[in-house]
Amino acid sequence: MPVGKFIVIEGLEGAGKSSAIASVVNHLHAKGIATQTVREPGGTPLAEAIRELVKQDWEEQLTAETELLLMYASRSQLVENIIKPALARGVWVIADRHDLSSRAYQGGGRQLGDEKLLTLRNLVLDNFVPDLTLLLDVDPKKGLERARERGELDRIEQEDIAFFQRTRDRYLEIAASDPAICVVNSNQSMEQVHRDLLQQLEVKLFHEMGSL
Amino acid sequence: MPVGKFIVIEGLEGAGKSSAIASVVNHLHAKGIATQTVREPGGTPLAEAIRELVKQDWEEQLTAETELLLMYASRSQLVENIIKPALARGVWVIADRHDLSSRAYQGGGRQLGDEKLLTLRNLVLDNFVPDLTLLLDVDPKKGLERARERGELDRIEQEDIAFFQRTRDRYLEIAASDPAICVVNSNQSMEQVHRDLLQQLEVKLFHEMGSL
Repeated sequence: MPVGKFIVIEGLEGAGKSSAIASVVNHLHAKGIATQTVREPGGTPLAEAIRELVKQDWEEQLTAETELLLMYASRSQLVENIIKPALARGVWVIADRHDLSSRAYQGGGRQLGDEKLLTLRNLVLDNFVPDLTLLLDVDPKKGLERARERGELDRIEQEDIAFFQRTRDRYLEIAASDPAICVVNSNQSMEQVHRDLLQQLEVKLFHEMGSL
Repeated sequence: MPVGKFIVIEGLEGAGKSSAIASVVNHLHAKGIATQTVREPGGTPLAEAIRELVKQDWEEQLTAETELLLMYASRSQLVENIIKPALARGVWVIADRHDLSSRAYQGGGRQLGDEKLLTLRNLVLDNFVPDLTLLLDVDPKKGLERARERGELDRIEQEDIAFFQRTRDRYLEIAASDPAICVVNSNQSMEQVHRDLLQQLEVKLFHEMGSL
């Protein structure tokens, strides 16, 4: 049995990741491919407990390093206990965020720099990388408006607009030099976003120019 | 005002760290030095929450990397929010464990290796190092017996004797090459241990051969 593929959906708050994941899953199911969706941080009991620590407000200063280390602690649990076993069973895994989020948010937004991020990534994940990352690029203002409409913002979502602008810039910088990351313009209508998304998926993983 | 000194007490379970800390603190107070004691993992509300995650039993496999990352997440909070501010106020900080524990337990016991450990240490703590580390060296069997007498063992304390032997070996290897780490034989009587401990403290930090 062939191993599954690991697909990551990335982007700022309000970029439309959830509906993009639903669209990708539907598309794969129509091809008869078994899927499993996961989210970061989280995805195992311990990883979800770590997610709670990261999301909540603390009276103490939460250092950028602590935030980063907690993200990778959660990620290690998810990769080893859920993602790798699923891929080995031939299941395709669709993730709501993965290590590109850390490189963008903590490396770019919190300005820890990409060198530190790559060092930690190699230390924790070694050579485990996604087969495809679909980056939903959205104007930070537009994304945050959408996120606000959904309800209360968590600790990270409360950062100022400059933080999200740095995060977006880092996302795009990394994408520019990595052929396994495809950028989709998420400022368009939802229908157009999904068409672009599935087009990229077809080209990259099925080597087809489908007429979607 | 001169900055405080950072003193770390290290060793296996049952090595006698708690009474050693009390002894060091009394000795410093007798000199009119203000002290603050901290423990790792823990020491801030978030760090204590992380401590709980590390200590408890999980049905899922807790990866060695996750354990290590959680230790450093806790450490980053403690160093930035408690230890550095205390030292800056001229207070001496006495810590029950610091990063040498990670190098010994996760690097040695869990066999992640010292290179990974040093990489992570530099990434998180940069050039922040203790002024003096007092390593209480105890035979693992003897130490675990003492720990068992104290009550229920936590997740890490339940490891087999080979784990603690590897941890002890790594402790001693590192101590052999670092002049800021002093080894105290903790298989002796408590009185002798404390005499040796304070002797080392005097020599290293006060440059005196006191008649203790």
